[in-house]
Amino acid sequence: MVTSSIYVGIDLGGTAIKAGLCDASGTLLRSAEGPTGAENGAQAVIDNIVAIVRKLVQDAGYEWDQVAGIGAGIPGFMNIREGVVLLSPNLRWNDVPVKRLLEERLGKPVRINNDANVAALGEVWSGAGAGRKNVVCFTLGTGVGGGIIINGKIYEGAAGMAGELGHIQIVPDLEAVQCGCGQTGCLETVSSATGIVRMANDAVERGDRTSLALLETITAKDVFDAAKSGDEAALRIVQRAAYYLGRAMAALAVILNPERFIIGGGVSKAGDILFNVVRENFEKYTPAASRQGVDIVPAQLGNDAGVVGAAGLGLYSDQE
Amino acid sequence: MVTSSIYVGIDLGGTAIKAGLCDASGTLLRSAEGPTGAENGAQAVIDNIVAIVRKLVQDAGYEWDQVAGIGAGIPGFMNIREGVVLLSPNLRWNDVPVKRLLEERLGKPVRINNDANVAALGEVWSGAGAGRKNVVCFTLGTGVGGGIIINGKIYEGAAGMAGELGHIQIVPDLEAVQCGCGQTGCLETVSSATGIVRMANDAVERGDRTSLALLETITAKDVFDAAKSGDEAALRIVQRAAYYLGRAMAALAVILNPERFIIGGGVSKAGDILFNVVRENFEKYTPAASRQGVDIVPAQLGNDAGVVGAAGLGLYSDQE
Repeated sequence: MVTSSIYVGIDLGGTAIKAGLCDASGTLLRSAEGPTGAENGAQAVIDNIVAIVRKLVQDAGYEWDQVAGIGAGIPGFMNIREGVVLLSPNLRWNDVPVKRLLEERLGKPVRINNDANVAALGEVWSGAGAGRKNVVCFTLGTGVGGGIIINGKIYEGAAGMAGELGHIQIVPDLEAVQCGCGQTGCLETVSSATGIVRMANDAVERGDRTSLALLETITAKDVFDAAKSGDEAALRIVQRAAYYLGRAMAALAVILNPERFIIGGGVSKAGDILFNVVRENFEKYTPAASRQGVDIVPAQLGNDAGVVGAAGLGLYSDQE
Repeated sequence: MVTSSIYVGIDLGGTAIKAGLCDASGTLLRSAEGPTGAENGAQAVIDNIVAIVRKLVQDAGYEWDQVAGIGAGIPGFMNIREGVVLLSPNLRWNDVPVKRLLEERLGKPVRINNDANVAALGEVWSGAGAGRKNVVCFTLGTGVGGGIIINGKIYEGAAGMAGELGHIQIVPDLEAVQCGCGQTGCLETVSSATGIVRMANDAVERGDRTSLALLETITAKDVFDAAKSGDEAALRIVQRAAYYLGRAMAALAVILNPERFIIGGGVSKAGDILFNVVRENFEKYTPAASRQGVDIVPAQLGNDAGVVGAAGLGLYSDQE
């Protein structure tokens, strides 16, 4: 048996629940995964979370009393302070008081936050932002998630809606397409995997000369692979995704003056072909005084950012 | 003689020094003004500040011991923590350790911050943002200044460069003009008094039918007056200034999710003709979830925002 305090992080997704145990320095000690079971209703999801977390703590050789905090990262809109998920299409949840439900079953304080904010906290606790206080994170996946860390904590805004960086309207009206949020020209329409696939399909439909035309269905990875092999149409798409990301960062730099930008999520795996263009446009479009000492780096925790950051929420509640 | 604590605020401008005394609730008790004397060098400016402040406290019937904090709002780039003004064209200052110089002469801790941040703090302490914790302020004057208040305090960013809202590049490249910061399309190029005058001169040069063509030199107030009298060219200019301000606020709403936007500075005196279009575009371009409960209001303290906010800096240091 080990005697130190541990923190439990829950990364609640539409299909899988991931749970992890961290020590006070943000090191992930052990993790486990299981199906969400969202199709069986909110109560079933709570049951599944409780079972995974209890077993994880036991299997790791800890006593339940050593759990000093529990946090959960959840996709959707929520009232963070009350701990109520207002709407989560992925989980099929409407007004689910998940904090109270988990606290009743686990007998410990539970904090929730949205998944992109939690991933940002994970990276700042023990990933690419370790030791930094003011960091802006992007998660480039199906959408573009954002998380703003100020003084080492998630900045939630007045109503918990801060950091929705995917909905900065960065594409000029003439070239803008509709976003899921109802607006047009959002960063998410060009710099997410979905946006990249859309631009690729547009290029094929337009008759651009590209190897992507040979594929049955195109993924974002296909576009990056084609770009790396010298496919010019694919390269233009990657450059467009990176250009707008760089310009959004230029705006964020004058507004927030962070020390560092972190880019994670599936799209970030494209590597230099993406990062070089992001950095180039950030340099080009940011006034010198606002970019001094600011860097742009890849996320380090990969898929673990969610559970580590969620455990970090637990550390918060322990400190307050 | 009065026995409570007072806070001294200094609003240091290129031509005038304003000083004010506030009580702990941010009420301005008394103020005074004198020439900056920047032409005589930094030491002369310090002498002038010290004389104005000492006399102000005495004339108000307070003992020097009752001064619990002193703050100064200064135009230019500065190292806020060290209290050194790195560059202030208005003051002709280069690397002036103003905090240390004032502390030596006044025998009290002094805090400095940039003038736009300080005005924002003033409005949140006892003006249009009183009782709010998360507020974004614009000062529309010669330039466009910005101040971000988070949890009731100025958010400075990693290197003190946060809140440079005038340099959000909001005008699409096709219509963008050069900004003093070296970039193009900054908010400041269209929503400042300078930007409005530039657009008016462009309209006259272009031969647009406008009463502004009859004026020897055009001021921003002329443009607003003409717009209010039904001059269509002038109205288009005001609408353009307001349009981009509304769109910049839409971006800020998804990033920061403030409770309230406050607009001050000379241009804000245009009133409804400006505010209605700002609000209309903010509504139009902000996703519903990010604009819920967010309002846009005029500043209340006018020219006093600087001294009140600077006194607020003093309150900070008192609390730390």
